[in-house]
Amino acid sequence: MKEFEAINRFFTRPSAVDLGIGDDAALLRVAPGHQLAVSADMSVAGTHFFENAAPFDIGWKTMAVNISDMAAMGAQPKWATLSIALPAMDSVWLDAFAQGLFACCDRFGVSLIGGDTTRGPLNVAINILGEVPHGKGLLRSGARAGDDIWVSGELGQAALWLQSRQGALRLSPTAQAAFAEAMHRPQPRVALGLALRGVAHSVLDISDGLLADLSHILNASQVGAVLDWQAIPKPDLYGSRLTDAQLQHAVLAGGDDYELCFTAANEQRAELAALAATLRLPLTRIGEVTAASGLRVLDGQQVLCVQTRGYDHFG
Amino acid sequence: MKEFEAINRFFTRPSAVDLGIGDDAALLRVAPGHQLAVSADMSVAGTHFFENAAPFDIGWKTMAVNISDMAAMGAQPKWATLSIALPAMDSVWLDAFAQGLFACCDRFGVSLIGGDTTRGPLNVAINILGEVPHGKGLLRSGARAGDDIWVSGELGQAALWLQSRQGALRLSPTAQAAFAEAMHRPQPRVALGLALRGVAHSVLDISDGLLADLSHILNASQVGAVLDWQAIPKPDLYGSRLTDAQLQHAVLAGGDDYELCFTAANEQRAELAALAATLRLPLTRIGEVTAASGLRVLDGQQVLCVQTRGYDHFG
Repeated sequence: MKEFEAINRFFTRPSAVDLGIGDDAALLRVAPGHQLAVSADMSVAGTHFFENAAPFDIGWKTMAVNISDMAAMGAQPKWATLSIALPAMDSVWLDAFAQGLFACCDRFGVSLIGGDTTRGPLNVAINILGEVPHGKGLLRSGARAGDDIWVSGELGQAALWLQSRQGALRLSPTAQAAFAEAMHRPQPRVALGLALRGVAHSVLDISDGLLADLSHILNASQVGAVLDWQAIPKPDLYGSRLTDAQLQHAVLAGGDDYELCFTAANEQRAELAALAATLRLPLTRIGEVTAASGLRVLDGQQVLCVQTRGYDHFG
Repeated sequence: MKEFEAINRFFTRPSAVDLGIGDDAALLRVAPGHQLAVSADMSVAGTHFFENAAPFDIGWKTMAVNISDMAAMGAQPKWATLSIALPAMDSVWLDAFAQGLFACCDRFGVSLIGGDTTRGPLNVAINILGEVPHGKGLLRSGARAGDDIWVSGELGQAALWLQSRQGALRLSPTAQAAFAEAMHRPQPRVALGLALRGVAHSVLDISDGLLADLSHILNASQVGAVLDWQAIPKPDLYGSRLTDAQLQHAVLAGGDDYELCFTAANEQRAELAALAATLRLPLTRIGEVTAASGLRVLDGQQVLCVQTRGYDHFG
């Protein structure tokens, strides 16, 4: 199969843009009064996913992590380009990959408008484009001392799956299956991001681990934070036996959660509780922004000693 | 060096967007009355450039080939994201790569607004964004029977350099040096693309070889073409001795030229001659669009037998 055949067969679908795949560039229109939000994320076999991972999952997740960046900006995801390097043109693999990719696109209203296919070690680079009303983007730099710190969903499931896969700990079969879903099919919190416009002071998505990502908010906002370990939403372990250190590492530093972490004024508590009910998505207060710098996690009166750095691909 | 340090050190520069590198997404504004043009191009070590190529050249060229897609749309290139996988964090290599990348950005007024760095086999994925006044984009689908077919510059230099590098032919030292420049530092024809708005009927850039790329115009426009081999601008060979077949292959099917190929009505000849003088860029009529399908290259009365397919990464 040739490059152009592959593009036609797997990646060309009707889309609502002025000009889609097939010319030197796609042409599209950004709604009046809106800013364009742009983000890019590259996923490499062996670094971000196992070489032999299910291609449907690779397609879903590489798109999902990009859409998650739009959620974290309060942007409506709209368009994406896909650049993919493949070791060989395997149409069974490509078909399943495209199905996963488009399943995620369809779920969140994203049109694939262009890209590139080439030969090389498996690498999926996606560029996501979205719209946000002018000045309404949710930045990392708006946290204020006294803000509540919130997270959506539960943290640590994907990291626990990965550590189990690597033999570092043992999960019960039920936990293994549940956490595999979190690892392979993350659900970008787009509806939450849109609802946080005008409500949250700062937002980001947790990709590198709660502490590492929250520290980006703290640095950008020049504030500190205290977190309450007991309050942080942890997964049901379905009978798995973990050490405290294993659980703390997964929840605080594990990464691959793609939940949103955000800060908001205390006055927003009732509104956020109502939002959680509307979205059927747990939103949990886990701590407080402080004027003093630094990031501490308390377990009652005790300061937890935990690794405070998240995952770094060159760490 | 960690990922965030690398981004700060090599890839973060002030830019004229609303929000640049450092948050979950960049935010930017598209000018009123304009469409956003979007294109993506991935370059892989071993496929698009030699593993040991000069990093400055890799930086220049990976950006240049993306900018060339904007030129081919008649779009003003404005913004780019860079996603790069690196086998190791080599700061000498990265510094030179960034210098080449930004030299090309600066030359064409492009701001780097975001991206991703990760570990993996060397792979550079760039997404380019530009602006074009609404409805003024230069498509592949507008060629009409009777149109002149034009190309900018000269064709075949990069392909000759590559074939010489691979031992398939021998170039004189002077030709070798001159063609290396064409291979490593292609010059996207942005000014030409902008000037062709409202003048050309169809435009694309020659990346896969004249015949392969022209056939995209012909297919999209449902027309055919006859080219005059004698008229096609060929490089000065500086004393190199090539067979006719070697030269024909490089000029017609070589690829990596990044010149523009376009079609325009006969009435535009004087204007295009004036444009060539203004831009100090040769513009050459090389043939004619025909109502009958097919693509023939004539050398006088003789139909040249040449390979009609361009480079395909899975060919």
